[in-house]
Amino acid sequence: MDAAIETPAVVVDLDVTRCNIDRFQHYADAHGLKVRPHIKTHKLPAVAALQLAAGAVGITCQKVSEAEAMAAAEPAITDILITYNILGEAKLARLRALAERVRLSVVADSTVVVEGLSRTFAGAGVPLRVLVECDTGARRCGVATPQDAARLASRIAASPGLSFHGLMTYPPVGGTAAVQAFMSEARGLIEAAGLPVAVISSGGTPDMMAAHQAPIVTEYRPGTYVYNDRSLVSRGVCGWDDCALTVLATVVSVPAPGRAIIDAGSKVLTSDLLGLTGYGHVLGRPDIVIDQLSEEHGRLVSEGPIDLTVGERVRIVPNHACVVTNMVDSLHIVSTDAADVIWPVVARGKVI
Amino acid sequence: MDAAIETPAVVVDLDVTRCNIDRFQHYADAHGLKVRPHIKTHKLPAVAALQLAAGAVGITCQKVSEAEAMAAAEPAITDILITYNILGEAKLARLRALAERVRLSVVADSTVVVEGLSRTFAGAGVPLRVLVECDTGARRCGVATPQDAARLASRIAASPGLSFHGLMTYPPVGGTAAVQAFMSEARGLIEAAGLPVAVISSGGTPDMMAAHQAPIVTEYRPGTYVYNDRSLVSRGVCGWDDCALTVLATVVSVPAPGRAIIDAGSKVLTSDLLGLTGYGHVLGRPDIVIDQLSEEHGRLVSEGPIDLTVGERVRIVPNHACVVTNMVDSLHIVSTDAADVIWPVVARGKVI
Repeated sequence: MDAAIETPAVVVDLDVTRCNIDRFQHYADAHGLKVRPHIKTHKLPAVAALQLAAGAVGITCQKVSEAEAMAAAEPAITDILITYNILGEAKLARLRALAERVRLSVVADSTVVVEGLSRTFAGAGVPLRVLVECDTGARRCGVATPQDAARLASRIAASPGLSFHGLMTYPPVGGTAAVQAFMSEARGLIEAAGLPVAVISSGGTPDMMAAHQAPIVTEYRPGTYVYNDRSLVSRGVCGWDDCALTVLATVVSVPAPGRAIIDAGSKVLTSDLLGLTGYGHVLGRPDIVIDQLSEEHGRLVSEGPIDLTVGERVRIVPNHACVVTNMVDSLHIVSTDAADVIWPVVARGKVI
Repeated sequence: MDAAIETPAVVVDLDVTRCNIDRFQHYADAHGLKVRPHIKTHKLPAVAALQLAAGAVGITCQKVSEAEAMAAAEPAITDILITYNILGEAKLARLRALAERVRLSVVADSTVVVEGLSRTFAGAGVPLRVLVECDTGARRCGVATPQDAARLASRIAASPGLSFHGLMTYPPVGGTAAVQAFMSEARGLIEAAGLPVAVISSGGTPDMMAAHQAPIVTEYRPGTYVYNDRSLVSRGVCGWDDCALTVLATVVSVPAPGRAIIDAGSKVLTSDLLGLTGYGHVLGRPDIVIDQLSEEHGRLVSEGPIDLTVGERVRIVPNHACVVTNMVDSLHIVSTDAADVIWPVVARGKVI
């Protein structure tokens, strides 16, 4: 297909995608762990459908507008967790409308958020499920201690329109033991107060194969695993053959023996480094470093001869797959059992 | 307007935009320099129209699809320079179609690019204007020496369907003297070969007020100047009041005394650092560093109390304005002489 694709292009191999989905689902099934994939990586109802068909119990979204886009798909996606503090009258109204259409859960890490949710859902036919977001070391959102988690759980349970549903965390890489410790203490406190903890949700692709080492977790939210990327290869989580998403680019200039310029810059590859050197891996060319991006140019350098010609195409595994799918309106989908197709990135740019 | 805007949002102050446009146009007029703004910053025909009304001779685009989007606007934009090596039959066909509708110029830095352009435009009613892209120190695209520039100029002039139109460079910051030296030598060689050099084009906002120090340059292509950003403030090119584009965000969590989380992450602010520390400047809060972004979260830290509350809004000047306008489908436009409006980012995502 390559020759027919105008570059730069984001290409997804659906066979590799399916393997990635199945690999983690089998692992999770073996350990009695439910899978609730984060759609931020693919932003595609059709890939969510593959994940659900493989056994996922529902999906995770980060923003209300993402959830709306996924709920509007055919066939409908009916079980959505939004792992974000929802604030503001407009978003809350959208959230209430969304809850009419899907089995919805959200998170909260403060009383301000809980109050807004309660005000919105008081009088709703079905109370809104709310999980307490816990900080198990990532120092992003989340209550800081199991005691704080227990206090907020009680507050949720006592709030009109809401039901306390469990605990959620996005741990730092290597944080599996911290998740087990925090969640065990928090669950103990909450159950001691007479509240059931239906769900304990953790996430993150880098540590997903260690999820069983935090057996208190009932649901896992992997995102990047569906495509994989250079950051995960560098962590030893997968190999290049497991990377389902690549960027196809054309060499537009070879101005010096050790330098070539491609037509993919930060508007496709993004500036995400994730601690790596360079902005992606040129498949088959480990000697090349993508050492500089401007918006429409990527600079490839090598200590040896660059050995590329103007007009030649290269395939790149980006540092971070999730952000790349946000940069393009459509993807080129390739697979062995169907003709190549172009899919719009349905939930692209959904930041609201 | 702020309270009515759902966050995160990209807001453009049209009054500040107009001032920025006028400031450079006046400077250029005083120095007999033509202005051909790069639309990659705003991606908006309406802002290009302001630039043209102020005196710009045309616009600059990076990709064919950007130029198509700008040419399709009402009123039509009729003079476009594409500062990119165009390769591949599909893009060349689009280029030829575009040349039927606008006064088009492109660049080339190799014979492969020239051959493709010539093959495409041989037999065209009007030859395609081609400038030689020159590397004056940025080590991106461009011929390496004035001698190479002269050779490629002759090749263009001898190619069916093409006319040699001049020289173009995107210099590194601080490269004004290098531009003058390279272009003087190249022009001398080309004129000695009997070819006129109609246009010598340079660009870059950081050095735009030094453009007169390279008097050989006939046209200048500023991009970021239209909005300005944190990178330009840090270089002393402008002040915060000159920054027309800001990101409006809501504080969604204040989990610790020195930390707050906002609802704008890399999907709005992008990971572009441009050599800076942190991912943007919170207006009115020089003590705050945006030290970490994930896709939908921005982390604000301060050595003192963060002194923000959940639900409060902050305005951020991003590191790099151009990439931010590529992240959103629409902008909120504010001005003193008209009602606030929402504009679609017409040329967003145009990477082809």
